[in-house]
Order: sequence, then C-alpha cells, then structure tokens
Amino acid sequence: MPDSAPRLPLETSDLARFLQVRDRTAAMAQPLSEADAVAQSMPDASPAKWHLAHTAWFFEEFMVAPVRGDTARFDPNYAYLFNSYYDAVGARHARHARGLLTRPSLKDVLAYRAHVDDQMADLIRAGEYSHDLLVLGLAHEEQHQELFYTDILHLFAQNPLRPAYRERTPSKTADPGPLTWTRFDDVDILIGHQGEAFAFDCEGPRHRVFVPSFDLADRAVTNGEWIAFIDAGGYRDPAYWLSDGYAVCVQRDWNAPLYWHRAEDGQWMTMTLNGPQPVDPNAPVTHISCYEADAYASFAGARLPTEIEWETAGQDHATEGNIATETAPLTPTPQTGTGLRALFGDVWEWTASAFLPYPRFQPKSGAIGEYNGKFMSGQRVLRGGSCVTSPDHLRATYRNFFHPDKRWQFSGVRLARDPV
Amino acid sequence: MPDSAPRLPLETSDLARFLQVRDRTAAMAQPLSEADAVAQSMPDASPAKWHLAHTAWFFEEFMVAPVRGDTARFDPNYAYLFNSYYDAVGARHARHARGLLTRPSLKDVLAYRAHVDDQMADLIRAGEYSHDLLVLGLAHEEQHQELFYTDILHLFAQNPLRPAYRERTPSKTADPGPLTWTRFDDVDILIGHQGEAFAFDCEGPRHRVFVPSFDLADRAVTNGEWIAFIDAGGYRDPAYWLSDGYAVCVQRDWNAPLYWHRAEDGQWMTMTLNGPQPVDPNAPVTHISCYEADAYASFAGARLPTEIEWETAGQDHATEGNIATETAPLTPTPQTGTGLRALFGDVWEWTASAFLPYPRFQPKSGAIGEYNGKFMSGQRVLRGGSCVTSPDHLRATYRNFFHPDKRWQFSGVRLARDPV
Amino acid sequence: MPDSAPRLPLETSDLARFLQVRDRTAAMAQPLSEADAVAQSMPDASPAKWHLAHTAWFFEEFMVAPVRGDTARFDPNYAYLFNSYYDAVGARHARHARGLLTRPSLKDVLAYRAHVDDQMADLIRAGEYSHDLLVLGLAHEEQHQELFYTDILHLFAQNPLRPAYRERTPSKTADPGPLTWTRFDDVDILIGHQGEAFAFDCEGPRHRVFVPSFDLADRAVTNGEWIAFIDAGGYRDPAYWLSDGYAVCVQRDWNAPLYWHRAEDGQWMTMTLNGPQPVDPNAPVTHISCYEADAYASFAGARLPTEIEWETAGQDHATEGNIATETAPLTPTPQTGTGLRALFGDVWEWTASAFLPYPRFQPKSGAIGEYNGKFMSGQRVLRGGSCVTSPDHLRATYRNFFHPDKRWQFSGVRLARDPV
Amino acid sequence: MPDSAPRLPLETSDLARFLQVRDRTAAMAQPLSEADAVAQSMPDASPAKWHLAHTAWFFEEFMVAPVRGDTARFDPNYAYLFNSYYDAVGARHARHARGLLTRPSLKDVLAYRAHVDDQMADLIRAGEYSHDLLVLGLAHEEQHQELFYTDILHLFAQNPLRPAYRERTPSKTADPGPLTWTRFDDVDILIGHQGEAFAFDCEGPRHRVFVPSFDLADRAVTNGEWIAFIDAGGYRDPAYWLSDGYAVCVQRDWNAPLYWHRAEDGQWMTMTLNGPQPVDPNAPVTHISCYEADAYASFAGARLPTEIEWETAGQDHATEGNIATETAPLTPTPQTGTGLRALFGDVWEWTASAFLPYPRFQPKSGAIGEYNGKFMSGQRVLRGGSCVTSPDHLRATYRNFFHPDKRWQFSGVRLARDPV
Repeated sequence: MPDSAPRLPLETSDLARFLQVRDRTAAMAQPLSEADAVAQSMPDASPAKWHLAHTAWFFEEFMVAPVRGDTARFDPNYAYLFNSYYDAVGARHARHARGLLTRPSLKDVLAYRAHVDDQMADLIRAGEYSHDLLVLGLAHEEQHQELFYTDILHLFAQNPLRPAYRERTPSKTADPGPLTWTRFDDVDILIGHQGEAFAFDCEGPRHRVFVPSFDLADRAVTNGEWIAFIDAGGYRDPAYWLSDGYAVCVQRDWNAPLYWHRAEDGQWMTMTLNGPQPVDPNAPVTHISCYEADAYASFAGARLPTEIEWETAGQDHATEGNIATETAPLTPTPQTGTGLRALFGDVWEWTASAFLPYPRFQPKSGAIGEYNGKFMSGQRVLRGGSCVTSPDHLRATYRNFFHPDKRWQFSGVRLARDPV
Repeated sequence: MPDSAPRLPLETSDLARFLQVRDRTAAMAQPLSEADAVAQSMPDASPAKWHLAHTAWFFEEFMVAPVRGDTARFDPNYAYLFNSYYDAVGARHARHARGLLTRPSLKDVLAYRAHVDDQMADLIRAGEYSHDLLVLGLAHEEQHQELFYTDILHLFAQNPLRPAYRERTPSKTADPGPLTWTRFDDVDILIGHQGEAFAFDCEGPRHRVFVPSFDLADRAVTNGEWIAFIDAGGYRDPAYWLSDGYAVCVQRDWNAPLYWHRAEDGQWMTMTLNGPQPVDPNAPVTHISCYEADAYASFAGARLPTEIEWETAGQDHATEGNIATETAPLTPTPQTGTGLRALFGDVWEWTASAFLPYPRFQPKSGAIGEYNGKFMSGQRVLRGGSCVTSPDHLRATYRNFFHPDKRWQFSGVRLARDPV
Repeated sequence: MPDSAPRLPLETSDLARFLQVRDRTAAMAQPLSEADAVAQSMPDASPAKWHLAHTAWFFEEFMVAPVRGDTARFDPNYAYLFNSYYDAVGARHARHARGLLTRPSLKDVLAYRAHVDDQMADLIRAGEYSHDLLVLGLAHEEQHQELFYTDILHLFAQNPLRPAYRERTPSKTADPGPLTWTRFDDVDILIGHQGEAFAFDCEGPRHRVFVPSFDLADRAVTNGEWIAFIDAGGYRDPAYWLSDGYAVCVQRDWNAPLYWHRAEDGQWMTMTLNGPQPVDPNAPVTHISCYEADAYASFAGARLPTEIEWETAGQDHATEGNIATETAPLTPTPQTGTGLRALFGDVWEWTASAFLPYPRFQPKSGAIGEYNGKFMSGQRVLRGGSCVTSPDHLRATYRNFFHPDKRWQFSGVRLARDPV
Repeated sequence: MPDSAPRLPLETSDLARFLQVRDRTAAMAQPLSEADAVAQSMPDASPAKWHLAHTAWFFEEFMVAPVRGDTARFDPNYAYLFNSYYDAVGARHARHARGLLTRPSLKDVLAYRAHVDDQMADLIRAGEYSHDLLVLGLAHEEQHQELFYTDILHLFAQNPLRPAYRERTPSKTADPGPLTWTRFDDVDILIGHQGEAFAFDCEGPRHRVFVPSFDLADRAVTNGEWIAFIDAGGYRDPAYWLSDGYAVCVQRDWNAPLYWHRAEDGQWMTMTLNGPQPVDPNAPVTHISCYEADAYASFAGARLPTEIEWETAGQDHATEGNIATETAPLTPTPQTGTGLRALFGDVWEWTASAFLPYPRFQPKSGAIGEYNGKFMSGQRVLRGGSCVTSPDHLRATYRNFFHPDKRWQFSGVRLARDPV
C-alpha cells in the first residue's frame, strides 16, 4: 500500500514511467508475425507472445487482482497460462510447451495488455497501489524485454532463411587496440545496493568485504582475439577447461561461439538481430558460455574477475565513458575511449562467482519472495549489461545470473589477473 | 510422360480432379490462424503450414521442375524446407524443427500453392505431364489431408483452452448392440491391388494366399466396451499385453485412450476436432495404440485379424452399407445397420500384420521409390480408413501403417477369432 | 504329470539327458572367474552367473516347487532374483541391474544348481514329473547356453585387454567360391512343426501356405563380400537402407559389423571367443543387425528370404551336408561342399519376416504361456542356428527372433531373390 | 626431489607412513569377493578393484615411472585402465565402464599393489623421491579409502539381499537433546591453510576475510528431526526448495534420504555398512543432498553456514571434543558432550558455498595441477569429515566438494542463522 503524504507527483511520474515501459514492450512486437510470436525455439526460451502476456500477468496477479478482485481479471485462464515459476500462486502451464499456445491469439494478448494497462492506470491515478511493487513489476518487464530479444534471435537463427528482426547494417569501427590492465589495490569496501533507488532483492544487503588487489582488463575480449583462440585449438585442449565445461564442449560439439559459422570463403559469419553478418573482429565476443569464457581466460594466462572485483571497479568507473555509446544497439559494438571501457551496456561479463546470497539476505515472504532466492544454486553471476539490456539496469550492483553452459544471452568476457 | 491417344478427356478430368483436391486442402486451413498453422506439437506431427507447403513441393519437385526447370520454382529455398524424407532429392530441414519455420508466412505458403497450381494447370492443359505421377501426387496430398486433421487435433489437445477446430456438437445415436461374429471359411484367395485404378505400390502385386477359416466381429469395439476394459484393470495387468506394449504402457503411464480424461463428475471426456466432448459409449473407440488393441483382444478372448483376413472380408463387403454414413464427419460415429458394419471410414483398424512387402514387390526406382518400401520395418498395418480419411482411400486393398505405439491417428480395433 | 505305462525307459533316458544338458552348462562356466560371471555389459545381456541361476530356477519354479512345496526351495530369495520375465510368478529383480548381484556368489549359485539337480533327479526317478515340462526346461537351458556365449563375448569385447574365453586359433580355409542360386518352384506346402519331437510353441501349428517360386543363395554372405560393401560406401548411402535402419546406423555411428575394428596396418580385426582375430574373408559375416542385412541385400540387388521360404528350403535340405561341419566351434567357419551349404549351425540368418503367430496359434495358459507369445511384436525371425547354438536346436522349423537393431548374436545373412 | 639435510629420519617415517596407509587400503578389501570388487553400481561410483588399482597407479605414474622408466611398470596397459581423469597423462578407460573390467583379476591388482609398494619402498629408502608428492599420493589414497566405503555401500544397497560389509550392530545411544546455538561475533579472520603440514592446493592460500556475526548449531540435524520434516510434507512443498533442487526432487521421486525405506510396520529402515538397520532418531541424518539440506534449513527457519563461517568455528573448536568419539565407526553416531559437537568425523556438512578458488589460487603446472582446480564449477563445499573419512583429513581447512544433487556420501547438515 502506498504512503500517503505528497502523493500526486509520485503517481504522475509512476504512471508516465509505467506507460513508457509498457509501450516499449508492445512496440518491440511490431516486427513480428503471429507465427513469430508463438514459436518457442528451445525450453530455455519463451515465445514473444508469452513474454507479452506474462509481463501483463505480473501486474494483474500482484497489483490488480488483490485490489479489484478476481472478477477484474481479463480471462481467468490466463493465470494458469502465463504464470512463470511462482509456486505460491498456483499451477502453471509447462514451460517447454509454451510454443503450443497458438491460442489466445497475439491480438488477444495485446488486448490483455491494454486491459491491464487501463486497470493499472486507474489504480495508479487512484493511488491504490504500492510504488515498490510497481517498480518491481517494471524492472521485471524490462528483464523480459531483454529475454524477448535473445529469444527472438535464437528462434530466427534456427530458420534456414535467417530472417532479420530489424534491417540495419552494423557499421564497422576501428581496432580497440591491445588489451591493457587497470590496477586496483587492496581495499575494504562496501558491496551491494543501498538507498532509495530500485534494486532487486539479491543486490543487497550492502556489506563489508575485503578485496585483495587485482588487475582488470580495460575492455572485453574481442572477436578477433577469440578467433585466435579457435585457431590455436582452444576448443580441443582440455588443459584450458573446467572439467564440467569440457564435457559439455565435447558433447555439444562446440567449436565457436553460438551463432557463428564459416562461410564458404572461410569468413566467420554470425547471426544477429540484423540477420546474418560477418563477425567484426573489433567488437566484443558474445554468445559464449561461462565455460568458454573460463577456458579463454586460462588460455590467455588470466582468469575471470569475481563479482566483487567487478563491482569494485564498477563503483569507481560508473561514468558515462563506460557506457556503450549507443542505447540499445541490439548488437555489441566496438569499445571506444580509454581507461576501463564499456563496463556497461555492451556485453554481459561472466564472473568467477556463483550466484549466492549476500550475508543477511532474506527472501521476501510470499510469491514475490520467489523472485531471485530460489535460483541461488548452480548459476554464475554476470555483470555489466548488454546491448539489449534496458538502460535502467545498467548499474554497478546489478547481478545477472545464468547456468554456466548457457550461450543465448549477449554474454562475453573481461579478463582479470592477480598482480604480478 | 503421358500417353498420346485420346488425350483431351483425360486431361480435362485430371485438371478438375487436381483442382478439387488442391482446393480442399486450402479450405481445410481456413479455420486456422497463422499461429495454429506453424506450431508442431510433437516430432511425429507436422505443422499445418508444412503440410500445405510440402504437398505443393511434391508437384513442383516431381512434375514442374523436371519439365520447366529450376527457374520455374517459386523459391529455391523451399525444396530444402519442405522435402519430407526423400533422400534422393537432397538435404532437408530437420523434421523435429518444422515448428520453428515462422517464415515463410502462411500467406507466402498459400501463394506458393497458387503458383504451383497455376503451373500444374498449364502442364496438364499442355499434356506435359504423367497421369500416373499426377494421381500419385493427389493420393499423397489426400494422405496429408488426413495427417493435417490428426496433427491439428493433437496440437489443440495440448492447449489448456482446448480450442475447437470446428464448432459442432456430435449427435448421440443408438447402442449398436452386442457384438456378433461373421464366419469366413477356408479359402484360396487373391490378395492385393490389380487393375487400372490407382493404388499405392505397396498394395500389390496381387498374389495368391490360402486363408484358413476365421470369424470377424461385425463392428469395431466401442467406447463403452473400452470403459469396461479400463474398469476391469486392463491397463494394469501384464497378462493381456505384449511385452513391448506393457513396457510402453507403464513408461508413458497410459490408463485410457489418448485424449481421454475424467471430468470432476467422473464422466469420461475426450478431445475432438469439435473441442472437448463426453465420450460416447456407442461410438467406436479411437486413438488407441496397437499395443492397447492387442491387449483388449486378449482381454476379450479374441485376437486382431491379420490384414489378409481383413482384406478377405473387405473384398466381400465393400458395399455401401460398410461405409460410415457421413462423409468425413471428423469424429467416429456409431455403427449402424446389420452384418459387417463400418469396415470403411469410421476408424482405422489395427491388424496383427507387420507392414512388409507382398511377394514380388519391387520399389520403383528413383525418389518415388522411397514412397513406401523403406518404411517396411517395425510398423503394423491398419485397414479400413477413418472419419478423416479421404473417401478416395476407402478401398479393400489399402494398407495404412504406423508403429504400434502410436495413438494420434483415428485408430481403433475390430476383433477376430479362430472358429470354435 | 507323466503317463503311466512303460515308465522306466523314458525316465532313464530323461535323467541322462537332463544331466547331460545341465553338466554342459556348468562346464561352460569353468573358464570364468567370479568377476567374469557377475558382470553385465549391457541391458540386453545377462551375467553368466545369472544364466546359471535362472536356468536352475526354471526347474525349481515349474517342476520342483509345485510337487515338493516351497520348503524345498534352495533359498526363498532366489525366485525374486532369478525370474526373468514371467509376470505370472511374481515380482523380479530389474533386468538392467543383474550385474550388481555380487551376492549370491558363483559358488552359491553352483550349489543351487547342484541342489536343483538332486531334486530333479529324485523327481525323475520317482516319475513325479511332466516329460513335456522337462524337455521344455532343457530346451530353455540350451537357449541360455547360446546367450551365455554371446553375452560373454560382448563382455570381453568391452575390455581393452580383450581376453579370450578359450585359446584356440581358428584355422583359415579355402574360398567358398562365388555365390550361386538354387531355384524353388511354386509350391503349396505345410509349414511349422508337427509330431512327437520337441518344438517351441511358436513353431506350430503346422499350416498350409502357398509359396511362390524363389531363388535362394547357396551360402551365406562372407566377410570378404561385406568388406566390398563397406568399401563401396554402403554404410553411408541411405538408398540401400530401411528408414528406421538408417536412422539407427547414423545415430550409433555404425560402419562395420559389431566387434570389427581396423588394425594399424589397415587389416580388419574382429573380437571372438578366441580373442581378437583377423577377419577371415572366407567365413560368413556375423554380428550384423537385420538392418545391415537388409541394406546389404539391396546393395546386392537381392532381398532377404521370408521365413517361409527359408523353411521350404530347410525341409528339403536338412541333411548332414547342411550342418556346419564342427559341433559348436564357437566361431563361424567357412562353408564347404556344394548345393545349399551350412543352412544350420554356422550363423543365424535374418529373414524378411516379422515374428508373428502362425494361424491358430494359442499361447499356453499360465506362466509357461509367456514363453514366446508375448514377444510377438517388433522382432524379426532368424533361421538356421549358429556356431554357438545347441545342436538340438538345429531344425527346419526353429524360429529365433530379435529386434532388428541387435547385433550381439551370431547373426548373418543369406540372400534370396525373385526368379528372373 | 627431496631436500638433502637430515635425510634418514624423514625417509624412515615416510616409509612407515606409506606402508601404513597402503596396508589399510588392502585390508579394506578383505571382506570383499572378486565379484564385489568388480561391480560398479552407478557412473558416480567406482569398483573397489578400481580404487585399489588407481591408487597404485598414482604412485607408479607420478613417482616410479619418472625415476625408473616405463620398463618398471607392472603392466603397460594399466596406465590406460586405471588413470582417472588426468588428461595430461593420456587416454583412459571410460568411467562408466569400469565395472566391465573383470580382468585383470583382484589377485592381479593386489600383485600390482605389492609391486608398486616394493618399488616405492626402494625409492624411499634410496631417497629418490619427492616428499611432497609422496604425501599427496597418500592423501589421494585416503580420499579413495572413503570413496571405497561409500561405493561399496551403494553397491550393496542395490542388492535385494542387502549384504553387510561388516557384521556389527550399532549401539543406540541417548538423545542428543534440543538443538542450541553458538554465537560468533563479527571478525576479521584468516581463512585457509598455512604451514608445513600437508593440505590440498585448494585449501589455500590463506587469506583475510571479514565474517559478519552468525549463530551455528551445536550439532548436526538428527534423523528424528528429519522424520519430522518428512511428516510435515517437506518433500512436497516447493516453498522450501531451491528451484533446481525441487526439480530434481520431483524427477527422482525423493521422499526420504537415500537408503531409507519403510518396513512393513512403518519403522524407517536404512542400509548401512552393517547391513539394514533401523533409523536411529538420535544419530545425525546422512545421505542427503545439498538440495535437501537447504530445504530442511528453510523449513527450520535457518540456513546453511558458509564454508567461511564453518571454518571460523572450526578454528576455534578443533579440539578433541569435536571429533566423533570412535575412529572410523563406518556409521554416523549420536553426538555427545556439550558446546559445538562432532564438527569432525561424523557426517560431512553441506555448506552454502560453491567450490571456487580462494584469492591468489594458482593450480600447479602439469598433471598434478588437475587435482582440484578443474572441478571448481557447479559443486558445493562440504566441511568436517564423516565416519568413513581418514582421521588425517579431519582438519578445519579441508574442503570436500560434490554436486548438490549427490547423496551417496555420508553427507548431513548443520544449521546456521543470522543473529536475531
């Protein structure tokens, strides 16, 4: 329930913000056909239509229905269809079968979104809402905006016609130059989110950590450097790999990042949201698993940074120069400038850290408590944000996480090393 | 290449027949959305859009391109996308990934069909075609019409909303009465197709067989009888089952025909092309595997007929009274009349016979030779035709075949026994 | 229960026969260590110790316990441990976990055999037994003798040390010469077992069949001919293969018969009960699946014989000249003589026939009825008998059966063709 | 290479220690038959014979062969058969097929051990060895001693006869009383191994960590408490579980610790190295996965300790009172005394920490470097040591690790919580 005092300004900006985020999601669906929107290319991915509906369901389930009652729901079946993983709010459609939901239609789902938007606007105008829940719902929607892009790319990459989500030829830019290192000295530091601004529960509590000195690379590993790794036989030498990682590499027959293939002339090509494109040697490598990132680091005589090291650097360098120049370019772009470059908004950077709770972390009670806590097993933290991440999520404390074998996110790697 | 003599009449009727079959396929797609048409509910099934395109490809590949050349093709990629299993004509898209072909669109595929129809009409009018290949192509398309129905039903059955392909409430009819037996005496008989009318290669050559006397049930097993089997614990007693069958039954947790579930009031419900419906105790049971059919026969103290026995009866009784009364009712209907009822056109009837070549069978050379011969392993023959089978396929010699664990076809069972 | 009249002679010979078969099984275990006897190399195979115990259990379960009561059992747990697939007599240990039964020891199992032998000897001497069940039990034991050999070979082939079950170098013999054909004319024939001598239930009833004329090869396909098939790319050309067969071939990466591998000098080697040996080009090929046999036949412009054709030939040619010269040589030997050679006792010959019941076949009631009938699905018939088959099983009516992908039996192929 | 100065004493004690550890391993095999020693009950487990041979191979590969040359090897094939996972020293036999190595015999493997013992004794007496490598080899062997026990227990638990490795009835003891908490205050502490005594590479380097205050339970969770969790439906309520954990729980149908089953009278029974025994409510629960441990902690309103917290407590309490009273009792025993009880030597305690490198960790170069580093992914740390752990491994810095779904180790749980 919202606080009482200076109500109007907050509600006005909340409504504007709500509509802005919601409209962006709907706009993202514009280039898609009804068929594009329903297909599910693998169990990890969801159909675009499902993303559209699930993000609406979140607001209906946690903000509209508790106030307006179940009769305010657009369709009582939708809670079953579009719940993702919240056990506390009931049964749900099997994840791997989302691609079979040819009904409701895309049109129906867009009507569902409009219905929820109307009801939310009413609630916000009437002040009958929790600001915190609203902000959480929008952050949730922005996460699904990123997944929308990664899942559509994965779907289109399975199609031999290799369709483009958007027709635009990426511009090639200059060589970012040889990798250099930035030294960080021993430090007692406070890690984790604090303050009024929104953050996910897993970003806190803020807590004291001692961080031994380390070096961090000024930029992410590039495609050109990755090709050297491939050419050196890096994918076939277990000495570089974690044991689990090499088993996966052999079993799935990995020999390059996801989406890469060689053209007949030997040129490496990759699939992008702009359709098939030559691999740009100057751009950061992406669509690699944590296992590959770790193997590359061994190959390069370095290691992955811990998430604590990353955040230590991020606190110091969360300046404009470290944010990729273009907002949401949908493909990683070469890293310009000097010093620590492109920490934010180009590719997610795998870290050496397992996704585990910070000291004193307590999951919230109820369904909202299922947001992050129950995934704290078997996953690795990624930091920084990618070219398809909402700019609102580009902050030093943000903890993204995936299982270490996953490759369909815009995930890359920045090296660290112990000081010599 | 067509014969020369009395050309016009044949071409006129060929063209009419061609357009009739082709139009029927296109009409079947009318109730489907773009999303319905792309989804693939399991590897055994294909998307409706794929059926639409593949049947066009057959004519383009085997009749248009050989005469008009590759430049006459609608799109050079389509051969890769829409070949099914013909190894002789090149690589093809993986079967299990057909549901990811969100492009080309349904509209494009319908345009493809129109393009092929135009070219075929030209070829037929010009006499530049093989009548035999044309008839084969149409028989092929009619087979896919049946698969179109069974695959859409399977898809819609996966959707918790249980959409109907067509809104019509099936009429309930009278109890077909207790099962009676028809005696067939020892006979030396000729089995298999002969003559000018079309038949698939596997229906011949006609050959002599000695058939010992047998009894054949006057009608298929009904849902009501099947419920008695369920209630008697038939699904949990291995004594009735083939060894392979019981292993599958346990592993997939079968306890009723596919699509059946119990409503809260205990009533058995089933999913149909008309949406969910109560199970009609008087209608023939359908959507059962051969394993279930065989187990039921053991339970009933009977056995499955061999395909030779079935054809022996079919030759004698291929009269009107044995054809289900309504053409393509899309659900099995109660069996009326007396004597051997509904041999044709209600449910496919599993037989005791493996799908194997008749004596002297020779696959045709070239890609067309891949039509049936290479599937002669591990499959069981079904006879008679179902409520979604093209009437052109209702003949005594027709050999349908599926692996014995498959249930998504309109497959049922008619009992046989040795004379006492 | 046995008949009454001239009892003594039958019982005397029954006892002698019983002890002869039982002693042979025990003798087969002599070369094995306790470890060799317990290991299970795949779910299809059973440990030697299990074969030893299960064949004793058969007599205890069906002949001793019904007369002497459960107290006469050696150990009440053994019924659970050593039942194979008889649902009617209770629960049983999971097939795939037989290799984990390190207890009871081999010594205990041999004591179990001796215990059952003593009790059976008492029963036979006292005339308290069914002659038919005794003969069935011995035929059952002889089947397991063959499986004992095939399973030990499979186990030893998994061991990088490639141990020999028996040390003997097979002698190389002369080229059997080019394949010739024997013509069989149209015939009305009686197929299947009849008479007093033992046969399995599935070998009857004897019944009339019309067999169109056919040609049968005078000998089985040789290793030398098979090498030509390999060298011609036969394992990589789907045109020769059944659809199911080629899928298995690709999935399991078959490129030669089971147990074959190339030595460093390019020579084909194979694993045998005598340890690793060079492939003898003159000996019949063995350890091939039905899929490979069928593909080879296509490659050779021929086909597999049906089991009816095979038996037609076997009835005519069940003479000494058609039995492999050496009893139980444990490896296939080159085929000598003229006319139809080595029909019996060299390699099992895959046929074109599914394993299905003959007309009027009725499984026996009770557990014994589970012997063959419930396996009549998905399997192919093999005819003739191999170098590890008991000579008692070398008869024209014998129907062996395995799934068409199995290769660990001594299975080969003899070609047939339609008369030109 | 050893240091030079006061050589004799070190070598004398090294030899004594070497022979003591080696003899203990051999003695452990005494109760096993040749069959017990070869069987492999699952891919995670190894046959006893393999443990015996692999631990000898370690000394041969890394200490004997480098000095005496390959001709000193007992059998050149053994390097292939008995290498475990060291990629740097060549190819190896597939892990899941270790149970098929019926040859070499147990007798041969014991002769191999004696051969290596003789050669090692010669090397030690001659001073031609590295003390560090020797100590590593012995620590390696002691790890395999523990695995020997856990793997034999798993094997015997698969046998319906439930054999005992050792016949001894565990004594029941008193109720350890309600759980109490020990408070640890905020502390800057040094974590990890330092000094001359042996430790595995992953136990260091020693490094500074800030540890916020926490409470640690005075004892591990008992079987009685676990039964209450079961009775409260803990295995069926996803609210308590990590997401990955609940998926595994459902898929494998977990409803109690591994080896537990209910007797007919409702009593919980468990399989132990002493054969089947009633579950002792006073003894610590064991054979639980990390997922179950975590779910229990949630159920109990607590959490797992981090490995840093555990070591903080272990540094303070590594006194005699915290070591389970009996050396190697082979089953967990009730926890006696007061204060923090049985930290060491009763059950391994799952922690909240992923197995990851400490700051400045560097794997050693060469094959020895593969010891721990390449497993630093996807595994959880366990601390403390169990009833089958070598006493030499009972130390505060020891980091055991397994994937969080594993249950066949003697793994239990001690709760922690944030101070209220």
